[in-house]
Amino acid sequence: MDKRIQRHASILIHHSARVEQGDMVEVKAPTSAEKLVIALNEQLGQIGARPRLTWLNSRANAAYLQALAPEDAVTAEHTVAAMEETDVHIVIQSHTNTAEHSETPAEVGQAVARASAPVQEAVPDRDVFTVYPAPGNAQQAEMSTKAYEDFVWNAINQDWEAQHEFQEQLVEYLESASEINLTRPTGTDLTMSVNGMHAINGDGRGNLPDGEVFTAPIVDSINGIVKFDFPVQHAGQTIEDVTLTFEQGEVVEHHAATNESTLTSLLNTDSGARRLGEIGFGMNRGIDQFTQNILFDEKMAGTVHLALGSASDRAAPKRGNESTIHVDMLIDMREGGVVTVDGEMIQQDGSFVFEN
Amino acid sequence: MDKRIQRHASILIHHSARVEQGDMVEVKAPTSAEKLVIALNEQLGQIGARPRLTWLNSRANAAYLQALAPEDAVTAEHTVAAMEETDVHIVIQSHTNTAEHSETPAEVGQAVARASAPVQEAVPDRDVFTVYPAPGNAQQAEMSTKAYEDFVWNAINQDWEAQHEFQEQLVEYLESASEINLTRPTGTDLTMSVNGMHAINGDGRGNLPDGEVFTAPIVDSINGIVKFDFPVQHAGQTIEDVTLTFEQGEVVEHHAATNESTLTSLLNTDSGARRLGEIGFGMNRGIDQFTQNILFDEKMAGTVHLALGSASDRAAPKRGNESTIHVDMLIDMREGGVVTVDGEMIQQDGSFVFEN
Repeated sequence: MDKRIQRHASILIHHSARVEQGDMVEVKAPTSAEKLVIALNEQLGQIGARPRLTWLNSRANAAYLQALAPEDAVTAEHTVAAMEETDVHIVIQSHTNTAEHSETPAEVGQAVARASAPVQEAVPDRDVFTVYPAPGNAQQAEMSTKAYEDFVWNAINQDWEAQHEFQEQLVEYLESASEINLTRPTGTDLTMSVNGMHAINGDGRGNLPDGEVFTAPIVDSINGIVKFDFPVQHAGQTIEDVTLTFEQGEVVEHHAATNESTLTSLLNTDSGARRLGEIGFGMNRGIDQFTQNILFDEKMAGTVHLALGSASDRAAPKRGNESTIHVDMLIDMREGGVVTVDGEMIQQDGSFVFEN
Repeated sequence: MDKRIQRHASILIHHSARVEQGDMVEVKAPTSAEKLVIALNEQLGQIGARPRLTWLNSRANAAYLQALAPEDAVTAEHTVAAMEETDVHIVIQSHTNTAEHSETPAEVGQAVARASAPVQEAVPDRDVFTVYPAPGNAQQAEMSTKAYEDFVWNAINQDWEAQHEFQEQLVEYLESASEINLTRPTGTDLTMSVNGMHAINGDGRGNLPDGEVFTAPIVDSINGIVKFDFPVQHAGQTIEDVTLTFEQGEVVEHHAATNESTLTSLLNTDSGARRLGEIGFGMNRGIDQFTQNILFDEKMAGTVHLALGSASDRAAPKRGNESTIHVDMLIDMREGGVVTVDGEMIQQDGSFVFEN
């Protein structure tokens, strides 16, 4: 077996989920991730943990959803019961074809998602989401499968203890910060306060790859203009060249070069959809290109992401923005970008002052 | 999709498991059964039942078992919890390679099986075991995959209501029977009593394919000699030309042309392993050849099977033989075989008197 797969499994088990003897582990995986499942099972056997394996089969799931009347959506009580006895939850994203749900009616998916809320509530704290590189993911990234494998394992197979220490330097700036300002020669000039919010060190526990530090803005503190440098995927559409103007935390003007009406709909989802819930800094130096997969893109070193919609409870206990949406959008700081914290420059051209 | 797969799914859902709206359904399937899983999910969606899909991955399971210390085997509490909330349990056997567990130590498999007893106890009454034809199964049957597909769906895709009626004729003979005698020109001449036992109509509820009527002998009533006409698979060995001599229900002599020592070990497993728990009559006229898969072989029309070991509680409530083993062995009645019930011939050359 490819040593990179064994290392990926080892990081998931020992770093991300900290699996112990006797732990009840649920692994959810699609067919294309079989090799990672085999590697996980071998290491779970060595530890003496107990796996159960749920098959994420997008063709079978699409067949179910496309035949289901929305009013027949019921809570999967057997799945809730299993989740309540689960100590570790590992979900593997891996696609042979990312478009298997293209014909699934949105209202059925939404009805099943609502009925599945009790499943989500039962997910244990040790909950990891990762990617196994399959042809469908590679196609989405416009890369060969071989090149995409290199890309994914470069992003994942890192020394996460060292990455934690590296990121902790930014955490320290942000924990004591009040005002953050972002500027770019393209016209971006945005100011917000994060006073009293927590900065979270994304060091490979909940996501793999990880490699970001994020916090939450004070909801009405945001003012200025921001131009996003990468396309935004939403509702099956690609929205390009998004520009947002904020006044007292609210989007008062918006533009996009393509699918502007999709952006308008997004902003009108609910009252929190016009406000920001997150500002995050990509710090994974193993991710050096945009691949249309937010799990990777938002971690790319030299980028900053802002999320319209809900804030993390960990970053902003009881104080963050609330919404049913959470849509991340990226700014590329690598050419002319400057980040200041309370007037002190902490990043220029995508490099932090504490980087070598 | 192949119409035969859709019909297979329909029989499983509507005849075998009688799935209803709102039922919690667990489907356990290997990768090679994907098409049947898709067909099942579509029909479960139409009914409004709720599937969850467990991936039977023999490579991953072998990796787990081969890494596990037997003393680390623990009950899968998450699986028990899920099973307790499950209304319908459908297990699909389908092999890419039937030998994936060749290097798995028997003691680990046994330790995990013991730890899994609470899972087995929680399996619901609506519990179906079926086969999806894959290359590994076909190879075991010494058939091409295409020919094996025809064989499997001929055996499965039948009118099970009509088969029930056909088999009910034998049930009536056996329910009122006392003494059964089997003879063959090869030397088989065996007598037993089934007085007061129940005859069970295997009509496609618990197994698919099905097509047998079975009952249990009175434990100490069996006398005579029986020569089995097909090889017996046990503990990875093939035991050929098995002959057993019974006196008052107990095997007092045994012979085999190959692996006789395996047969000896089998008979010495426990005190019930030298006694019979079942006599069954294969009645599926869609199964016309031996394929080394007992789920099919024991249903083959014109055969009788005897099982060393445990009796079915349904056939022999509190009165049947008890053992940890249940090993079916086949007699081919099609050339010169005669079955009498209380002196009346009911089958000759593999054909029942009530058959056309």
